[in-house]
Amino acid sequence: MFVYADNAATTCVSRAALDAMLPYLLEDYGNPSSLYAFGQKAQEALQEARETVAKCIGATPREIYFTSGGSEADNQAIVSAARVGARHGKKHLISTKFEHHAVLHTLKKLEKEGFEVTLLDVHADGVVRLEDVEGAIRPDTCLVTVMFANNEIGTIQPIREIGALCRERGIPFHTDAVQAAGHMPIDVVEMNIDMLSMSGHKFHAPKGVGVLYAKRNMPLVNIIEGGAQERGKRAGTENVAGIVALAAALKESCEHMEENTAKILPMRDKLFAELSKIPHSKINGSLEHHVPGTVNMCFEGIEGESLLLLLDREGICASSGSACTSGSLDPSHVLLSIGLPHEVAHGSLRLSIGEYNSMDEIDHIIEVVPKVVAYLRSISPVWDELEKGTRPHLI
Amino acid sequence: MFVYADNAATTCVSRAALDAMLPYLLEDYGNPSSLYAFGQKAQEALQEARETVAKCIGATPREIYFTSGGSEADNQAIVSAARVGARHGKKHLISTKFEHHAVLHTLKKLEKEGFEVTLLDVHADGVVRLEDVEGAIRPDTCLVTVMFANNEIGTIQPIREIGALCRERGIPFHTDAVQAAGHMPIDVVEMNIDMLSMSGHKFHAPKGVGVLYAKRNMPLVNIIEGGAQERGKRAGTENVAGIVALAAALKESCEHMEENTAKILPMRDKLFAELSKIPHSKINGSLEHHVPGTVNMCFEGIEGESLLLLLDREGICASSGSACTSGSLDPSHVLLSIGLPHEVAHGSLRLSIGEYNSMDEIDHIIEVVPKVVAYLRSISPVWDELEKGTRPHLI
Repeated sequence: MFVYADNAATTCVSRAALDAMLPYLLEDYGNPSSLYAFGQKAQEALQEARETVAKCIGATPREIYFTSGGSEADNQAIVSAARVGARHGKKHLISTKFEHHAVLHTLKKLEKEGFEVTLLDVHADGVVRLEDVEGAIRPDTCLVTVMFANNEIGTIQPIREIGALCRERGIPFHTDAVQAAGHMPIDVVEMNIDMLSMSGHKFHAPKGVGVLYAKRNMPLVNIIEGGAQERGKRAGTENVAGIVALAAALKESCEHMEENTAKILPMRDKLFAELSKIPHSKINGSLEHHVPGTVNMCFEGIEGESLLLLLDREGICASSGSACTSGSLDPSHVLLSIGLPHEVAHGSLRLSIGEYNSMDEIDHIIEVVPKVVAYLRSISPVWDELEKGTRPHLI
Repeated sequence: MFVYADNAATTCVSRAALDAMLPYLLEDYGNPSSLYAFGQKAQEALQEARETVAKCIGATPREIYFTSGGSEADNQAIVSAARVGARHGKKHLISTKFEHHAVLHTLKKLEKEGFEVTLLDVHADGVVRLEDVEGAIRPDTCLVTVMFANNEIGTIQPIREIGALCRERGIPFHTDAVQAAGHMPIDVVEMNIDMLSMSGHKFHAPKGVGVLYAKRNMPLVNIIEGGAQERGKRAGTENVAGIVALAAALKESCEHMEENTAKILPMRDKLFAELSKIPHSKINGSLEHHVPGTVNMCFEGIEGESLLLLLDREGICASSGSACTSGSLDPSHVLLSIGLPHEVAHGSLRLSIGEYNSMDEIDHIIEVVPKVVAYLRSISPVWDELEKGTRPHLI
């Protein structure tokens, strides 16, 4: 049985997305910047996509900028706020310890340029505290950027409240909503969001296309200079087919959000319930504030990477953390941020399921994971020590 | 009859490109950074694409970085050379007056940061002179960037010679080869090229994917920070389907380059021969050093934009200059750079044809353009003055 349980890494392209994009690859391939009707057809498709995306998050079409993906959107949002802030002598940015690297590495780059960055603690439950945000705000703070839902442990942050706080203080607020868009209701007005990033391939659009929402009057700085596309804020001929597919996929995901969630939750809950029976296992992140599909657990005495490779042999696609940092030998910065010791963080498993999964697939996972964990423990010298009591159990 | 004669703006997606990409949208949608076999399949597709692209330009796979397009590649190449140069106290860049805006606007941004930029003249024939490049080089020059072929007038630059000169002086050399890749032979080793930009949609790949070639040891600075994709130089989940399509399209274009050129040249020559019969018309740019498919002419006494709109009514897709600056009322900076007066530059027409065009289509253009020019002149007050002799003819 083949079970794709890594939907937080990427998703299959939906039929709706594919159907939407094909005409713009095959027939209506004009350049949207061209004056003739054939080009204007592509321009209209872009405009329609912009309207669709705007509607899905409560924005206006003029506030939607298409990018090459979530990373580019994160980079542009943060760099824009920093550059504009610097012009007013404001060079302090606030974020959290467990953001995606697209955020953390951009902040690191700015630090090297002389900006100051405060990374907030996310506590054991993987949720940032409003009072911590408040306490970190300084007169020279030019941006607060807090992710909507964490990509590894799935915990949801108090976005609306942070947004309200920032709005009150006149500080731009950005959220990396790559793991939330299409999976949870988002309303940028109600949630007081000034900038928001999305990535199409996390909700059944193709890879290579994303969105930066920026509230009207929120100044953007280009990170790609050139032609006047995207109202002069993002140069380069528009990825028309990808953009149209993104809009179709987001629309579909938003329209079916309730029924998708209703389908996913029992699968996720069964995973949590059954896999928790494995001794010395631990669920990572609060289940109270959680995206529907993400399950993150640690199993003591094993290496996450070995677990993944054996699951792969059984047809199960899963990850130990973010796909973007696979191959790294360091334990996940997310798991360390919620206070897990290195040894425990090494034994992590992320299963991220979606509406394309079935209960049969969940049963397969539930059958395989305990066996594989048991096998890995049987050959683990660390587990041996844990069992003998010469090494203390940590979970 | 519908005639798409704007292949310099964008091209249709070829069957080979579409066939290559579909499996990576539909079935093999794994994230290339994932450890499991399903993800590694995507990783292998990327590697194969990298090898294919490298082979097409005489590079090695490790020198190929996939980007979201030509603009991003131009930005990254130039910003990289500038940042690295600045570390060694070198803050002078050399380019030409008629580069694409992805180059010119990036240089402008660097100027605002304190870099110095020399923009070389391209003379009436639209070809930069080697001695001008040589004369502009200073001890603090950190980059020479000269486009391979101009996007509006199609003139080819002495890339090999400029490359040799730069190599001799130890100065990095970048070329924006967006209009050349897939249409002309490129060998980065033989041509002494350190960095080169390509855009897939100019050679029948989809929009939204490009390539930056950077010679081994040529240091790159990220413009998108985040995950470790593209050897840590370009963050963001790879646009696998787009990349695979780009490689397939480039391979196909390179393999059929001779026969495509043999098909295109007679069509182009016929266009030049017949449209030159229009009185007070002018061919822009040297025909001696020219990409196969581009025809750029000016017709005195008319507005290029009106010409395009009337050609559109007759089913002909053409442009007056770069699609990226359409809608701008300023005359093309390219035409001004080759010394055309404003009035003449306003009456420009670019027809860019490719291997998908037919001689029948060319005949349609030849039939329509003279009529439309004559009509526009008949209602033009400027033409009236030119005819009466109260305004001197400029061409």
